[in-house]
Amino acid sequence: MSAYETLVSNADTVIGGDDLKERLDAGKRLRVKLGVDPTRPDLTFGHMVVFNKLRQFQDRGHQAILLIGDFTTLIGDPSGRSDLRPTLTKEEIAQNASTYLEQAYKILDPEKTEVRHNSEWFGEQGFEDCLLLARKMTVSRMLERDDFSKRYKDNKPISIIEFLYPLVQGQDSVELQADIELGGSDQLFNLLVGRHLQKEAGQEEQICITLPLLVGLDGTKKMSKSQDNFIAFSDSPKEIFGKVMSISDEVMWDYYRLLMLKNPQEIAALKEAHPMKCKKDLAANLVDQFYGEGSGKAELAAFEKVFSQNKIPEDMPTFEWSALGLGDSASCVDTMAATGDLFGSKSEIRRLIKQGAVRADQVKLTDPNAILAKPDAPIILQAGKRKFVKILP
Amino acid sequence: MSAYETLVSNADTVIGGDDLKERLDAGKRLRVKLGVDPTRPDLTFGHMVVFNKLRQFQDRGHQAILLIGDFTTLIGDPSGRSDLRPTLTKEEIAQNASTYLEQAYKILDPEKTEVRHNSEWFGEQGFEDCLLLARKMTVSRMLERDDFSKRYKDNKPISIIEFLYPLVQGQDSVELQADIELGGSDQLFNLLVGRHLQKEAGQEEQICITLPLLVGLDGTKKMSKSQDNFIAFSDSPKEIFGKVMSISDEVMWDYYRLLMLKNPQEIAALKEAHPMKCKKDLAANLVDQFYGEGSGKAELAAFEKVFSQNKIPEDMPTFEWSALGLGDSASCVDTMAATGDLFGSKSEIRRLIKQGAVRADQVKLTDPNAILAKPDAPIILQAGKRKFVKILP
Repeated sequence: MSAYETLVSNADTVIGGDDLKERLDAGKRLRVKLGVDPTRPDLTFGHMVVFNKLRQFQDRGHQAILLIGDFTTLIGDPSGRSDLRPTLTKEEIAQNASTYLEQAYKILDPEKTEVRHNSEWFGEQGFEDCLLLARKMTVSRMLERDDFSKRYKDNKPISIIEFLYPLVQGQDSVELQADIELGGSDQLFNLLVGRHLQKEAGQEEQICITLPLLVGLDGTKKMSKSQDNFIAFSDSPKEIFGKVMSISDEVMWDYYRLLMLKNPQEIAALKEAHPMKCKKDLAANLVDQFYGEGSGKAELAAFEKVFSQNKIPEDMPTFEWSALGLGDSASCVDTMAATGDLFGSKSEIRRLIKQGAVRADQVKLTDPNAILAKPDAPIILQAGKRKFVKILP
Repeated sequence: MSAYETLVSNADTVIGGDDLKERLDAGKRLRVKLGVDPTRPDLTFGHMVVFNKLRQFQDRGHQAILLIGDFTTLIGDPSGRSDLRPTLTKEEIAQNASTYLEQAYKILDPEKTEVRHNSEWFGEQGFEDCLLLARKMTVSRMLERDDFSKRYKDNKPISIIEFLYPLVQGQDSVELQADIELGGSDQLFNLLVGRHLQKEAGQEEQICITLPLLVGLDGTKKMSKSQDNFIAFSDSPKEIFGKVMSISDEVMWDYYRLLMLKNPQEIAALKEAHPMKCKKDLAANLVDQFYGEGSGKAELAAFEKVFSQNKIPEDMPTFEWSALGLGDSASCVDTMAATGDLFGSKSEIRRLIKQGAVRADQVKLTDPNAILAKPDAPIILQAGKRKFVKILP
């Protein structure tokens, strides 16, 4: 793969690709900007996707610039949101920012990273500078943005400060004289504003590379701190391992591609193995990356030990709740009986419960009349050490 | 008339009228704000309408605050405009502002006027303060404004800075703790933003009093510096007198009401006299107001002397060009003949021209074949010292 191909691999959108080729061919050391807003104390594996890209540039001798948006965070990036972000105090922002660097260096080479804060320039600027910046963009161009357009049409309030966010982020590119800006795919509009402002300032326009948004643990929404579906850089080895093990098989291949940078051929080869094995390998590798070679293996062993102690098999008969014909809730006895012959008759099941041999998700049942509501998540019903069924929502 | 009635006389809109009554009844000394943006070096008679109102408050012991918008002018008030204002430099703004005060004191009592500049507070504030202000208003509320709404629908660009103008002007009211803000009727939205920001800041909301916009010399558009249809405070006595004499009879009564503060009864009485006499009195009184008692009379004498020297009567036969049946242009001879018998036959008229006895708007005609185009303004044709006709466009 050429340097260009590597550097745009996994990209969602590349704006100015020809410029990138030219600058690479000219042997230019590129200034590559990645901005993070310290809205919460933790970086997540969602950040890892763009951090990996920045590291690729860094490994090829380009100048990685990690921009801590301590000033932008005062505004709150409205991208992709349906409401105004809550306000953080300067103290909260500073506290969050302080933990970011240590976390970022799990991916980036600290020796080769230029760390900047946008309070460096905006903290010095006056009220008037904000007005002059606001002069450089029109209302209609902002309202063309999908998220703003939708909110405007839905009569959901958009604060004027939200129109200023993209301008402030774009001005960062001018201040940093960025050659390239990286971001999630929801950042494309903001990154383009950077090009616009650089052009106005007589600079070369930055190349914009956006990366796909990593799906969160729920398997549907973007991984984000506000959705609480994330793996954090600061999670313990056990948390990382366990959370990775909880993702669906489908999402797993995205993680291989975006977090482990596996190419399609490598992924095709991996798919030859059992998905459970692949998931364990992924989980172990990611733990290794954050806690050092070998820590993943230790976590894997611990994980398997728990499961073997609990003697819960990886495969078992599985039923959808709705297929059992039980309505919105049912007694445990009726539920177990509805799965077939495995647990015996209802009176046998009742007796097993009285003996303390029945568990629902590892919790021993004591009341033979216990009621089970239609579950929201898979639930495992177990009698003794051999008989298991899984009920799906 | 009660104090309240006097203070709201001539108002276009009063917001918070009950509050005004209450504060007056409580004997409060009210802080009355009037902002002017030094976009051009001259105050005009358009400003005089609101200055007169401020003077009424001043005369009743309230605190007049004249706010020179040296900072706001950096943005340019978008109210009622169909495009973005041109930018002024700080030097131009300072120069314009410097002449404003002297002019303002033609109406206001300098001893009792608190003069402020909004650079006092905004000049000290940071980039961040602008963001915090922008947080206090929504995009949709701005786009509800007629002028913005129209421009947005017509795909005419609105710069984001224009959304900040009303907020900046409103913040002035917070800084000044204004009880009342005065403005032209096109300022109502901006004045209401002041109320909004005062409420957010925990202050009592200002009462808003808007005054009608004075019609300019053209008789149709709002008097404004940018339309060049204005009388300036700094115009010479001759200019003021001449410009007032040029307005239509209809507009004259507006000037009596808004510049001379004549009430309906007084105006009804004035209408008993000949309109030309009323207009001369108006012109003379306005010259007096700016150049001292007696200067208007002197100007009137000078004006009448010119007209009597020229021996042009105030009344004369008047024709509309279209009624003469002459097409788009005609010879002077044909035109004069078309007005009837006054000037005699065409050959007589031709002879009069050769003798140098014919004038068109005071200019002697020498060519008997001179062509007259359909006039854009009234034109007076004259033969000798007795015979006059006026041709209307």
